[in-house]
Amino acid sequence: MSNTQKTSEIVGSLLTIGDEILLGDIADSNSHYIAWELRARGFRLGRIITVGDQVEEIVEMISHCLLKSRFLIVTGGLGPTDDDKTSAASAIALGVPLVTHLDYRKWLEERLAQRGRDLSPEVARMADLPEGAVKLGQGMAGFFIEHQGIPCYFLPGVPHEMKTLLAELVIPDLEKRFPLRTRCMKRVIRVQGLLESEINQRLNDLDAREMAVEIGYYPQGRENWVTLFSTGESEKDCLERIDAAEAKVVARLGAERISGRNEETIEKVIGRQLLAKKWKLAVAESCTGGWVAKRITAVAGASDYFDRGFITYSNRAKMELLKVPGDLLESHGAVSEPVARAMAEGARLQAGVNVALAITGIAGPTGGTPEKPVGTVFISCATPEETLVEKHFFRGSREVIQESAAQTALVLLWRTLSK
Amino acid sequence: MSNTQKTSEIVGSLLTIGDEILLGDIADSNSHYIAWELRARGFRLGRIITVGDQVEEIVEMISHCLLKSRFLIVTGGLGPTDDDKTSAASAIALGVPLVTHLDYRKWLEERLAQRGRDLSPEVARMADLPEGAVKLGQGMAGFFIEHQGIPCYFLPGVPHEMKTLLAELVIPDLEKRFPLRTRCMKRVIRVQGLLESEINQRLNDLDAREMAVEIGYYPQGRENWVTLFSTGESEKDCLERIDAAEAKVVARLGAERISGRNEETIEKVIGRQLLAKKWKLAVAESCTGGWVAKRITAVAGASDYFDRGFITYSNRAKMELLKVPGDLLESHGAVSEPVARAMAEGARLQAGVNVALAITGIAGPTGGTPEKPVGTVFISCATPEETLVEKHFFRGSREVIQESAAQTALVLLWRTLSK
Repeated sequence: MSNTQKTSEIVGSLLTIGDEILLGDIADSNSHYIAWELRARGFRLGRIITVGDQVEEIVEMISHCLLKSRFLIVTGGLGPTDDDKTSAASAIALGVPLVTHLDYRKWLEERLAQRGRDLSPEVARMADLPEGAVKLGQGMAGFFIEHQGIPCYFLPGVPHEMKTLLAELVIPDLEKRFPLRTRCMKRVIRVQGLLESEINQRLNDLDAREMAVEIGYYPQGRENWVTLFSTGESEKDCLERIDAAEAKVVARLGAERISGRNEETIEKVIGRQLLAKKWKLAVAESCTGGWVAKRITAVAGASDYFDRGFITYSNRAKMELLKVPGDLLESHGAVSEPVARAMAEGARLQAGVNVALAITGIAGPTGGTPEKPVGTVFISCATPEETLVEKHFFRGSREVIQESAAQTALVLLWRTLSK
Repeated sequence: MSNTQKTSEIVGSLLTIGDEILLGDIADSNSHYIAWELRARGFRLGRIITVGDQVEEIVEMISHCLLKSRFLIVTGGLGPTDDDKTSAASAIALGVPLVTHLDYRKWLEERLAQRGRDLSPEVARMADLPEGAVKLGQGMAGFFIEHQGIPCYFLPGVPHEMKTLLAELVIPDLEKRFPLRTRCMKRVIRVQGLLESEINQRLNDLDAREMAVEIGYYPQGRENWVTLFSTGESEKDCLERIDAAEAKVVARLGAERISGRNEETIEKVIGRQLLAKKWKLAVAESCTGGWVAKRITAVAGASDYFDRGFITYSNRAKMELLKVPGDLLESHGAVSEPVARAMAEGARLQAGVNVALAITGIAGPTGGTPEKPVGTVFISCATPEETLVEKHFFRGSREVIQESAAQTALVLLWRTLSK
């Protein structure tokens, strides 16, 4: 690419037509897919808009998007039923008449003839496209039309048809039309043990403009993500900028807070740590009831380091499986520092493994007391060297408390293995 | 409700703020949830719009929505970081100044003080709301403001916070403001052990128009949902229609295939069955690694009937915890009918409970053989009377296989307890 020519970011719009999404019948899975595919190739959506099957609203939104977009993708409303209004509305928005696309009409005729049926007026309507439209795809709806230099792609809402046209026609065409678009790259940095506001405080004096990197913050349950997004003339430029920005971010947040990057979940990192140490893991869960084991075993190959999990919901189970002394349970209660410690050490001993993680707490909604309200959770990690115990308090629903306790326990395990 | 007064449909707008959705970082799960919840109560979304963190675009879209809506819901962009622009943009769109909400600011201060931290300028910004705004919720972002008779609800993008405010404040307020809206009702019928195509075959001759009920089919993992939706002047009308339609649907699908309705998950039904029998449950999981225990313990009060879970990932764990004979593991392999049976019976005996469920299989992606390919799963349920074993084969990713195996195991337990 010539460096004398300037590249620019290509921002477009996605318009989805269909009452079924607005009525909550189906989730809009197309938008996320399209946004991701475009971004990975250096295109970006400036807006995603879903409207129903009313011509006026479709016309209005197409017009709005054309004012703000380098390209437009519209999905849905191209079928044969009465509430398929996209073609008619697009003709109005683009200021051209609807004309019958003869090849497409002929194809529809032949296809129906093969099934021994005649072309119904409803199906025939599918061949009426805005003047100047180019049919996209074979055996499915979809067309392309250029309007004042803006490429407009009209795709079927059926996910596998949309995906086919996007991959085979839309993205290649966009890449041809915008060769000088800026490349872009993105990196997720997974931060543990810092609040979103604390992260922001530590990073907000970084000059994103100077670094030419956008910094974003996304709380993901108890884990916070810092995302670095860079656009540039080449992938190499982006990579250099992101590496430079990451160095600054890590310096401010502390390397010990960073558990991984991109798809590197904390359970994957823990797996690698255990393999490196040739250690086996056992977990003992009470209030999390399987959350931690489920996440550990979500990683392919977990059987190489995960030996077993004890879900000791009853006190009897804690005594029988983990050898937690009954008097400890009586004197301190199941949700207590000594019991958490005894669970971790018992799990480690009984399983005959190197490291064990234990969680005991009150997930609620009932079972809380003034001294130990719902959300009180003790987490313990036992290794050959030491047994650590932490007390935490989590707010929220039963599910939120269970999820938070599981995440926090995994962080304790990760920290312990990082020593 | 007086029949002389005409009811009407109340159509509103949903605006989602956040670059992360436009960039394809995360899928927008909130919109589907909100659309579904609103519709179930007789409200409807006319448009769902997602824009990025640019003030101008947010202002433009809020103004557009206000022109077309009886109500407006905005999610996201209320946090403490620099790219949280919703409050500032809404003030501009509504033509009022931003003012500091003193109670909220005080609450933020106190909350941080509890953690031994000072109120940073970033967090303090969260208390700057459009003049006239009413704070919504405790311990989370969110506010309400009425503009020219249009209620506008600004909610956090964090799903569990949004859901809490939607259920406890937004929907009750909407119902109070619009009592004369067209009523509508939706019922989900949870069907086990029938493919979507089989359900469709059995139901497609039902005349939805004659019943005045819309019938939908939604596969949810291994479980299939049949949804019945009806609108009318009163809840009574809707209820009568839906009850009549359900009777026809159940007659065609078979009552023994229906595990529950609406929020009645199979794990909740299993809990009720166990309480009624005064039975205790134990589970022994290998390939599902905690999925089943997690679902069982997701139900509040599970400790009344769930005693313990064994996650026996290694053969040693199967032998030590469940007393599975070593020669059985050697001769048949861990993934086999006899081992599944021995795991269920061992779990029942060792835990000293009435019923035990066991799962052993190959979740993949590796570990498959020609005789036992990835996706091969044995499921067993042991009661005082009998031990049932089923062999299943599931296609898909590791996660899909684990989820399918867990769901299928819960169905076996439910069927067994239904006898």
